[in-house]
Amino acid sequence: MYELGVVYRNIVRADREAADGLAALGSATVHEAMGRVGLLKPYMRPIYAGAQVSGTAVTVLLQPGDNWMLHVAAEQVRDGDIVVAAVTAECTDGYFGDLLATSFKARGARALVIDAGVRDVKTLAEMGFPVWSRCISSKGTIKATLGSVNVPVVCAGALVTPGDVIVADDDGVVCVPAARAAQVLQAAQAREANEAAKRAKLASGVLGLDMYAMREPLERAGLRYVD
Amino acid sequence: MYELGVVYRNIVRADREAADGLAALGSATVHEAMGRVGLLKPYMRPIYAGAQVSGTAVTVLLQPGDNWMLHVAAEQVRDGDIVVAAVTAECTDGYFGDLLATSFKARGARALVIDAGVRDVKTLAEMGFPVWSRCISSKGTIKATLGSVNVPVVCAGALVTPGDVIVADDDGVVCVPAARAAQVLQAAQAREANEAAKRAKLASGVLGLDMYAMREPLERAGLRYVD
Amino acid sequence: MYELGVVYRNIVRADREAADGLAALGSATVHEAMGRVGLLKPYMRPIYAGAQVSGTAVTVLLQPGDNWMLHVAAEQVRDGDIVVAAVTAECTDGYFGDLLATSFKARGARALVIDAGVRDVKTLAEMGFPVWSRCISSKGTIKATLGSVNVPVVCAGALVTPGDVIVADDDGVVCVPAARAAQVLQAAQAREANEAAKRAKLASGVLGLDMYAMREPLERAGLRYVD
Amino acid sequence: MYELGVVYRNIVRADREAADGLAALGSATVHEAMGRVGLLKPYMRPIYAGAQVSGTAVTVLLQPGDNWMLHVAAEQVRDGDIVVAAVTAECTDGYFGDLLATSFKARGARALVIDAGVRDVKTLAEMGFPVWSRCISSKGTIKATLGSVNVPVVCAGALVTPGDVIVADDDGVVCVPAARAAQVLQAAQAREANEAAKRAKLASGVLGLDMYAMREPLERAGLRYVD
Amino acid sequence: MYELGVVYRNIVRADREAADGLAALGSATVHEAMGRVGLLKPYMRPIYAGAQVSGTAVTVLLQPGDNWMLHVAAEQVRDGDIVVAAVTAECTDGYFGDLLATSFKARGARALVIDAGVRDVKTLAEMGFPVWSRCISSKGTIKATLGSVNVPVVCAGALVTPGDVIVADDDGVVCVPAARAAQVLQAAQAREANEAAKRAKLASGVLGLDMYAMREPLERAGLRYVD
Amino acid sequence: MYELGVVYRNIVRADREAADGLAALGSATVHEAMGRVGLLKPYMRPIYAGAQVSGTAVTVLLQPGDNWMLHVAAEQVRDGDIVVAAVTAECTDGYFGDLLATSFKARGARALVIDAGVRDVKTLAEMGFPVWSRCISSKGTIKATLGSVNVPVVCAGALVTPGDVIVADDDGVVCVPAARAAQVLQAAQAREANEAAKRAKLASGVLGLDMYAMREPLERAGLRYVD
Repeated sequence: MYELGVVYRNIVRADREAADGLAALGSATVHEAMGRVGLLKPYMRPIYAGAQVSGTAVTVLLQPGDNWMLHVAAEQVRDGDIVVAAVTAECTDGYFGDLLATSFKARGARALVIDAGVRDVKTLAEMGFPVWSRCISSKGTIKATLGSVNVPVVCAGALVTPGDVIVADDDGVVCVPAARAAQVLQAAQAREANEAAKRAKLASGVLGLDMYAMREPLERAGLRYVD
Repeated sequence: MYELGVVYRNIVRADREAADGLAALGSATVHEAMGRVGLLKPYMRPIYAGAQVSGTAVTVLLQPGDNWMLHVAAEQVRDGDIVVAAVTAECTDGYFGDLLATSFKARGARALVIDAGVRDVKTLAEMGFPVWSRCISSKGTIKATLGSVNVPVVCAGALVTPGDVIVADDDGVVCVPAARAAQVLQAAQAREANEAAKRAKLASGVLGLDMYAMREPLERAGLRYVD
Repeated sequence: MYELGVVYRNIVRADREAADGLAALGSATVHEAMGRVGLLKPYMRPIYAGAQVSGTAVTVLLQPGDNWMLHVAAEQVRDGDIVVAAVTAECTDGYFGDLLATSFKARGARALVIDAGVRDVKTLAEMGFPVWSRCISSKGTIKATLGSVNVPVVCAGALVTPGDVIVADDDGVVCVPAARAAQVLQAAQAREANEAAKRAKLASGVLGLDMYAMREPLERAGLRYVD
Repeated sequence: MYELGVVYRNIVRADREAADGLAALGSATVHEAMGRVGLLKPYMRPIYAGAQVSGTAVTVLLQPGDNWMLHVAAEQVRDGDIVVAAVTAECTDGYFGDLLATSFKARGARALVIDAGVRDVKTLAEMGFPVWSRCISSKGTIKATLGSVNVPVVCAGALVTPGDVIVADDDGVVCVPAARAAQVLQAAQAREANEAAKRAKLASGVLGLDMYAMREPLERAGLRYVD
Repeated sequence: MYELGVVYRNIVRADREAADGLAALGSATVHEAMGRVGLLKPYMRPIYAGAQVSGTAVTVLLQPGDNWMLHVAAEQVRDGDIVVAAVTAECTDGYFGDLLATSFKARGARALVIDAGVRDVKTLAEMGFPVWSRCISSKGTIKATLGSVNVPVVCAGALVTPGDVIVADDDGVVCVPAARAAQVLQAAQAREANEAAKRAKLASGVLGLDMYAMREPLERAGLRYVD
Repeated sequence: MYELGVVYRNIVRADREAADGLAALGSATVHEAMGRVGLLKPYMRPIYAGAQVSGTAVTVLLQPGDNWMLHVAAEQVRDGDIVVAAVTAECTDGYFGDLLATSFKARGARALVIDAGVRDVKTLAEMGFPVWSRCISSKGTIKATLGSVNVPVVCAGALVTPGDVIVADDDGVVCVPAARAAQVLQAAQAREANEAAKRAKLASGVLGLDMYAMREPLERAGLRYVD
């Protein structure tokens, strides 16, 4: 996070199977499976609804109003990566548009997560290249100051280390440390396994109060019912 | 608002016909018919576009990061209710997802209005269960501290008493006190009655200046035209 | 900006061809072609996705909670105009709905840009009348205090002089001074001319690093690669 | 909250002794003694540091950009009151300055709590008339539209009924329902009674872990220590 | 506002006597005397309390994260000027510290108004060099991209033309167009002339309701008193 | 950051001399000496003006609305530490007051940096225990859910590893990695060494344009002067 002007070419990406498998679980289930940590702030929103992806993080540290390092990052992208971009100060400029998206896509990137602005969002939606960002802005950027590629970054309040797994959908974005990816996948799948049964019960009118056996602890906590 | 750890089981719901009839008028017209009061803050947004509902309020007071009371509330829901949830402090966590929505729907709830976050929004949209919320967040919650059900709450700046009518659409959310529901329905319908005629006039090019006879008061107020 | 209670009837609109032609280029390209200035703040968002328009500005200066001047403005609208509304203080009320939109449309307006709230957004989308606004709110307004029409206004941080060209799309809103419209159109078209070639190259896997000859300046700036 | 254009002259003020006595306890202790409810949102800040007051609420419902009702409220103020002002929409205008403060003070008011802006803050500090507000703004207001005096209002997220006790200091503002004032005073005093002993212990180096006997519950919750 | 890379050396400053005289009136009174316009947004706050200044504007247009133009501006400052700095995008970096303040002061500047961040605030307070800013931030800036000096700028929502009068105090900042300075001074003085008498009346217990003869218009507007 | 329910007792604190020496340089100079990184977001503000401290970080990860771990952290504090507290979700509650401050101070803590709220600020100022926080709030917290002590945390957008050096003053807060503390101290001292000479020059009227030899690069960049 503190190193500027450097590009790490060899990063250790999380297990591919785990990285790919987490998409299906979604950000909420994955975050629960991790023990309720790892989420980026909820101001990070998708530029269009419905995308649900996971992949390995290539990280970028940007300077305010300067997108030079996104071009440098493109070369480091491999199939199955998601680019995660942080800025050294708060900035709402539009760092990324359809040309960079074309390049990222050609290199195998699945998405961009950026704690700043993005533009050409209509074209990005038509291309099917999803972006989670702080905002949308036409404001262009310059190419004058060095940042870094593939150093650990704090993006929207979460630490992202290169190679970590990123899971993003309409609910938000979560980062899974590479070393925990396989275990989190398993835990998330286990979590989801019995959701269908629960859903059926609840749909039939059974109450969570009964299904989760909450009546007794609620009474113990002192809940009073008044008629 | 000040009572914690209590569930009121018998609430006086607004007249059903009025509660159901207000949906068609929409939040803007209803708020005007009430004398321009009763709106929740505009940061409350629908998780998907196009839903337009009304119903009687079952209220919930939640603790920060704790959704226990939503399960307690489910049991109090009847056909035609809308759950209105407030938190004792500002919180953006995702208190509500598809499982709770399945339960609420099975109990007859039409929607949720919550001054906090919600998740599983893609599934909620597919289920057709509308939610108006402060934000969308994957962040999960715990079940440890008591709040209350069916006490008066302040939700997004508006006082909501159990049984009041909630009207929500793409423009926002308004709360109509139960005792005024029938009268407000009438006033809102009267308001809307002559909108079609006005719209036709304006569409033909007639100016509001003339249709509303504004030229004279504008002149009196001192409006100058410069060529 | 400092004049209240006045309506300028004769404004000098930008060259029609330039005003109409800029829509196709979009806000990001136009803003770049102007030297990266003229943008309204990114909190200005379209009420529905996909609209892309340009037109000549009819400006309105409103008082907080008071939409009287929008009715006065309607009379000044001509074919191809876009109404740009500022408020003398920060306000989130819903100043504009489907009736005013019907009137504006009948007069030839293509869109509204307003640094405040708007309502009836579902109907506006059905009508195909696009609005860029600070927020959406059911809150109604009164008609009691004079503002002005066709004076220079600051709207969402940008100076807009009556007759300027407004370009708005999903990325945001930009204002082009009337005197520069033709030149900006040309510059924007030139900018876009070689985008197709660039896009094809990037899609084939060529890197921006090479296409833009960035490797040498990056090295000169001190960028280090670590294996 | 829903009634406009009315002034209630006879309100039931909380017990004077309780209303006066709560100031010494401060907003944090009083809010705890109430069961952790009743606080206004933390964006309400004092215009100068160090004031600590309590008193009985005279409430005002204002229209956006219009301070007419503050003049109406002045007449309803009695010795020991605190004026609590809400606005029907979000507004940052400067509703209140040194002239109104002079009048309020002459009538016996101890402070103003307003969910909007205030001005002349240097003079107010010199006068020793404390205000808790959403912001500071030079923006003036008009006198054109009716609100109400002494109706229940929602101010900064809290319901305030006329006659309730307001406690405000550098930490924030809390509202105590009139009926609970005496009991809350007692509870708050009890709470504070053993604080001196606790403070002395902690100052001597005793840990809260031991003083509050937290080690065992922490262990039960699973806390691990790693050397 | 649209011109980058240019420094205007000869600007027409407002009448010196008016520019100097307006400080004593303060931002609220001056804004009222102008017809309630010209204020910068209320997020502009002084870095220390108690400063009250007026002077003629030297304007600066800055790029995000780049304070190069502040050094260029220093040369254009004359005795009695206030530097007004805007940024082409939203930025919270600390553009200005004690070294630049030393330089500005030596050139005769009375204050800085900047729609961005400032640092070394403790030293600035000790030097008695007042700044009104969007925020305080340690974040440093670079010197790489041209902006402009003495072009019209939009600063915190207000248009400021070089030579205009800036009035700033604890209540906020207002801009008076150079051409209107003398007239506004007169109007502001007239406004203030009878404030002492009013204050004395109000202090004696006379109500604004009577002093401003509001009872009759309130009754006409329909105000009801309930006992 | 991802580990909950654990307390690391043995952390490697930065070199004491460096940790202590950095206070005198201040957050702005230290951040520049690090290459312009390491700052916490500017919304972190001191609860009173004038404090300037540095020390070694003891980190705490808190749950929303729950301050249990602050008590656990107290035991891990040694002379010269600064407690840095992050929350797993956005929260404005008042986690810390005068009792905890008494305990922290008794253990040798110099300050608290917390990305949440704090209360009893008047007493904290009287005690001379400085706090940098997101906000001030009377809202109390519970003690029910485990977080961690001395794990790496993201606090207000910056990664803080236990043992890092924290430097905080009126301008903000910066985190210096333990391993770089001595080198940063040296760089910061070097940076400050020639500030006195520069200040004297600027005070005598020499322009930064000349002192920093900016005229030539500005001309090369294309700056035009217009008379």
